[in-house]
Amino acid sequence: MDRATLIPVLRNAATQLRIDSLTSTSEAASGHPTSCCSAADVMAALFFSEMRFDPGSPRNPLSDRFVLSKGHAAPILYSAWAEAGAFDRAELLKLRRMDSDLEGHPTPRLPFVDVATGSLGQGICAAIGIALNARRIKSDYRTYVLLGDGETAEGSVWEAADVGSMDGLDNLCGITDVNGLGQSRATMWQHDMEQFARRWRAFGWHAIVVDGHDLTAILDALDEARATKGRPTMILARTIKGKGVSFAEGKDGWHGRAFKKGEELDRALAELEGQRVPGVTVTAASLIRKPPAAPAEGPSPKSVAPPTYKLGDKVATREAYGTAIAKLGEADARIVALDADVKNSTFSDRFEKVFPDRFYQNFIAEQVMVGAAMGFAARGAIPFPSTFACFLARAADFIRMAAISQVGIKMAGSHAGVSIGEDGPSQMALEDLAMCRAQPNITVLYPCDAVSAEKLVALSAYHPGPAYIRTSRPQTPVIYANDETFTIGGLKVLRQSGDDVATVIGAGVTVFEALKAYDALKASGTAIRVIDLYSVAPVDRDGLVAAARATGGHLITVEDHYAAGGIGDAVAEAVADAGFRVHRLAVREIPRSGKPDELLDRFGISARYIADAVRSVASAVAQ
Amino acid sequence: MDRATLIPVLRNAATQLRIDSLTSTSEAASGHPTSCCSAADVMAALFFSEMRFDPGSPRNPLSDRFVLSKGHAAPILYSAWAEAGAFDRAELLKLRRMDSDLEGHPTPRLPFVDVATGSLGQGICAAIGIALNARRIKSDYRTYVLLGDGETAEGSVWEAADVGSMDGLDNLCGITDVNGLGQSRATMWQHDMEQFARRWRAFGWHAIVVDGHDLTAILDALDEARATKGRPTMILARTIKGKGVSFAEGKDGWHGRAFKKGEELDRALAELEGQRVPGVTVTAASLIRKPPAAPAEGPSPKSVAPPTYKLGDKVATREAYGTAIAKLGEADARIVALDADVKNSTFSDRFEKVFPDRFYQNFIAEQVMVGAAMGFAARGAIPFPSTFACFLARAADFIRMAAISQVGIKMAGSHAGVSIGEDGPSQMALEDLAMCRAQPNITVLYPCDAVSAEKLVALSAYHPGPAYIRTSRPQTPVIYANDETFTIGGLKVLRQSGDDVATVIGAGVTVFEALKAYDALKASGTAIRVIDLYSVAPVDRDGLVAAARATGGHLITVEDHYAAGGIGDAVAEAVADAGFRVHRLAVREIPRSGKPDELLDRFGISARYIADAVRSVASAVAQ
Repeated sequence: MDRATLIPVLRNAATQLRIDSLTSTSEAASGHPTSCCSAADVMAALFFSEMRFDPGSPRNPLSDRFVLSKGHAAPILYSAWAEAGAFDRAELLKLRRMDSDLEGHPTPRLPFVDVATGSLGQGICAAIGIALNARRIKSDYRTYVLLGDGETAEGSVWEAADVGSMDGLDNLCGITDVNGLGQSRATMWQHDMEQFARRWRAFGWHAIVVDGHDLTAILDALDEARATKGRPTMILARTIKGKGVSFAEGKDGWHGRAFKKGEELDRALAELEGQRVPGVTVTAASLIRKPPAAPAEGPSPKSVAPPTYKLGDKVATREAYGTAIAKLGEADARIVALDADVKNSTFSDRFEKVFPDRFYQNFIAEQVMVGAAMGFAARGAIPFPSTFACFLARAADFIRMAAISQVGIKMAGSHAGVSIGEDGPSQMALEDLAMCRAQPNITVLYPCDAVSAEKLVALSAYHPGPAYIRTSRPQTPVIYANDETFTIGGLKVLRQSGDDVATVIGAGVTVFEALKAYDALKASGTAIRVIDLYSVAPVDRDGLVAAARATGGHLITVEDHYAAGGIGDAVAEAVADAGFRVHRLAVREIPRSGKPDELLDRFGISARYIADAVRSVASAVAQ
Repeated sequence: MDRATLIPVLRNAATQLRIDSLTSTSEAASGHPTSCCSAADVMAALFFSEMRFDPGSPRNPLSDRFVLSKGHAAPILYSAWAEAGAFDRAELLKLRRMDSDLEGHPTPRLPFVDVATGSLGQGICAAIGIALNARRIKSDYRTYVLLGDGETAEGSVWEAADVGSMDGLDNLCGITDVNGLGQSRATMWQHDMEQFARRWRAFGWHAIVVDGHDLTAILDALDEARATKGRPTMILARTIKGKGVSFAEGKDGWHGRAFKKGEELDRALAELEGQRVPGVTVTAASLIRKPPAAPAEGPSPKSVAPPTYKLGDKVATREAYGTAIAKLGEADARIVALDADVKNSTFSDRFEKVFPDRFYQNFIAEQVMVGAAMGFAARGAIPFPSTFACFLARAADFIRMAAISQVGIKMAGSHAGVSIGEDGPSQMALEDLAMCRAQPNITVLYPCDAVSAEKLVALSAYHPGPAYIRTSRPQTPVIYANDETFTIGGLKVLRQSGDDVATVIGAGVTVFEALKAYDALKASGTAIRVIDLYSVAPVDRDGLVAAARATGGHLITVEDHYAAGGIGDAVAEAVADAGFRVHRLAVREIPRSGKPDELLDRFGISARYIADAVRSVASAVAQ
């Protein structure tokens, strides 16, 4: 369509998006209409000229993708999809209501949202994964991501910038809505467009500065972005917050404020209505170009090769993790792995060696690693991002948003606990179980040996939703046969007799401390039950209660983790309603460097402490 | 001293630092000697020519500061301080041993370490706070921070870059040790120095590229940095990993690997010994220039103005927080506040209005906000960084390192829980208590009304170590008199009688749900005890046990937080050894947008659910 015909249609679409953004937020009596108004022309150009998508089939894997990184502009996203015909415009008036999926910030409850946004600086990281996924499935779909200007203060944006240029993602186009006003004050650089341009150029992106309310300029920039090869493009759109409503335009104090129904809203809407170009008969929706039809499903995954260890082999679970993802990759083309320059410690390099095209290096940037994994998962891949467990905390807010998004990222954290030894506390994850367990929908798995590590990694891949696999640095003996079966939500009873005076529940390295304590106690005539709690969330409540009932109600947990939020708490909540309590052994102070075994003992989670705890239980029983 | 005399002394110092780094890591059989070798010349120039400090009094508040952001080069830091005379060189051979404070990565157990490093990209954020602190105390001390090149992939580095240039920190000098090799592979930009320079220049820093093994060039660059006004300087030092040991120089596979004692180490040491410049009699330590003598302590803090509310006033705790820090700022010049562009929501703008010189805007960049607070706290300030509670998760890894550092940052998170309402899950903190409780040394406070908010904020300021204050969005009635006293580790019994059938434990907004349940139950003849658990960590174990004993052992917790890691777990662990269990009401699924009251009910933490829980307890009692 020629520009002369196109522009008035887009102009009217932009006006409609502004009107919808105002009416819906005013009806809700909250929201960010002025943050929508600044982006309206860009949104109109994207949705009704640039992107190929099917409003009736938003999940089509070959359609262009749009990520609203500035998630607080949700109303204009909803309006664009309504204008496109995805749903009835009247739904917009349910914005922010409990009975509507049109939430205050976008979530994948809506079929056209890939990942939840609203925590700034995350959408662009997801967009990296979405753009990389196009390469994986050999599609030419393009990925668009709209950021706020204030948002670019987030470091995660620059992690994404580095990865985007490093990977030459010319199928990715960012647009920054530079309206110059943050929540509480003017943004760092306001309308100094050169500040933005020189940053993006320094990070290797093609940067284009445009007037964000000039549709011709926007369309030209989108053309230029599409023609730019070998690197992503960032369109820096100079805009006015509240554009279209004279009394709000460029004014402080209008962030996160709806227009008051009545005179204030009426005045604003009257202004906007006056901006409609008369005589335009073509609808915006009619301009939308459809993507290719969705392809048939790929080949079904093959079965994963079983473990091939010998009982007693000494293998670190982190190493078995590397073996496991390489085997998974062989069985299923959807498996991808992401690293943050520790692949030789997490053993994810075993995957890279076999599948270099499905291995994504993020260098030392955990936020974009997890964010890109979210994008991959949203587009049908099964991503395994991994790093030292403690450094997953760098991406804690991404993990929070992954849980909200309910996307199937399969995180693996190595080097858990004080058992890493000499590197000291900065490298010891002692709160990672708490971080992941806190989310109500993250599966948390913690293998103690190589066989369970391989099996649990494979289980995690096909279990819906996010998962976390905790691995350890030290080599531990293989205790399970290669054909042992594991289930998410299960546990293993490793030692039991009719005379057990207590149940000791360990996981990971502490399983072996528990087994040592078993041997020591047995030598002095005391029998205990030993459980490997390899599934920390969900937890096998019935199995734990049964063990408690069989062992005098005495449950002792022992974990290479801080006391709060980990295995002790998981077990305690599970057995509470059956009337049982838990005695917990855990790390209770900031640790320090030392040898692994020394540290297990120094911080109270060694076999000696377990045996003491059992003896104190047993003596209480004897009294 | 003239350069001709100086350079050989520095050259020998650098050789000594390399030798020490090798011998200490070989003795420990682990560590990162090659990462030390690349930095040795820079370290020698900094410690023995550039910086003013007193090896005998490393904490002197007027001395120049050095932060080793690339914390894995700890051995060379220790060697530099040994060479300076701070301790006996023989101590270096205890590196990484449990009986030594010379840990694998630096921690403030050592008097010359301000903040723990070892999680990359954090030291430079702390350095921002340390440099800002110089302005606060009107000192001309300078702050130096040494980064690795791989480290600059971390987004937090660019958050610091923005704040550093925005604040014109010309008393801050970074040095990037560009050795081109990461842990698992070559770094993103290897030795392409322009990639680094253009990034730092784009972010407004003065950037200088030097040969990092040319002492003259390094000294010139440090001179140039000192002479540069209005912006910070980043010296980009092109170096060779393993410099000085020919068979390790610039080779992959040497990261995190000690030289094997015996032939390998001997060969390396022989090479290094051969690099000593003969005939130098001046010691490096003799060159150190001392800082001014430490000043007398500042004025004692005044007492904080008491709250001035009327019972029943409706005030959000976040608003009382703003009032509280403004009052604290009046009483104590050490109080500073840091924001991430939400000051009008957290009410930290009340502090800014009165003390603009002690208010630090970080824009939307939570990592540098918390990191800078760590730097402030390490240098004697009492920093209050605040944002929405959910966005503190962006800085979770910084909070982890703050706990390891044991520094007194006083974090405040507003907008906790589903009670924020319409903005939806991305803005709701439901795992913040778990995040902070997981650390063994973070004080966690959660006021329910304006009086307790003011009092708890003041208590947090003077309690050692990190603290977290959780505030809420909705207005809640004032229930405490202005002269009510609170203690860290305390609780308040709000309702009690001799007939109480259960104790309901709330905090924040759920206190009011508990009080509503009390009224409803009382109307039907059932009495309950109601506790405001305003101190979540530490928790008042004795008070909880007493309540349990007095109310039939029935404890019900109710929290606007996910079930794992929060108040339920805190209470359950506290009362376990006394034989009590806890019935928990908490948010157990991903929430959604809606009205606050609707959401409290939808997610099972409203008065109605509390009353039901009490009735089920009471009926169980009656049976």
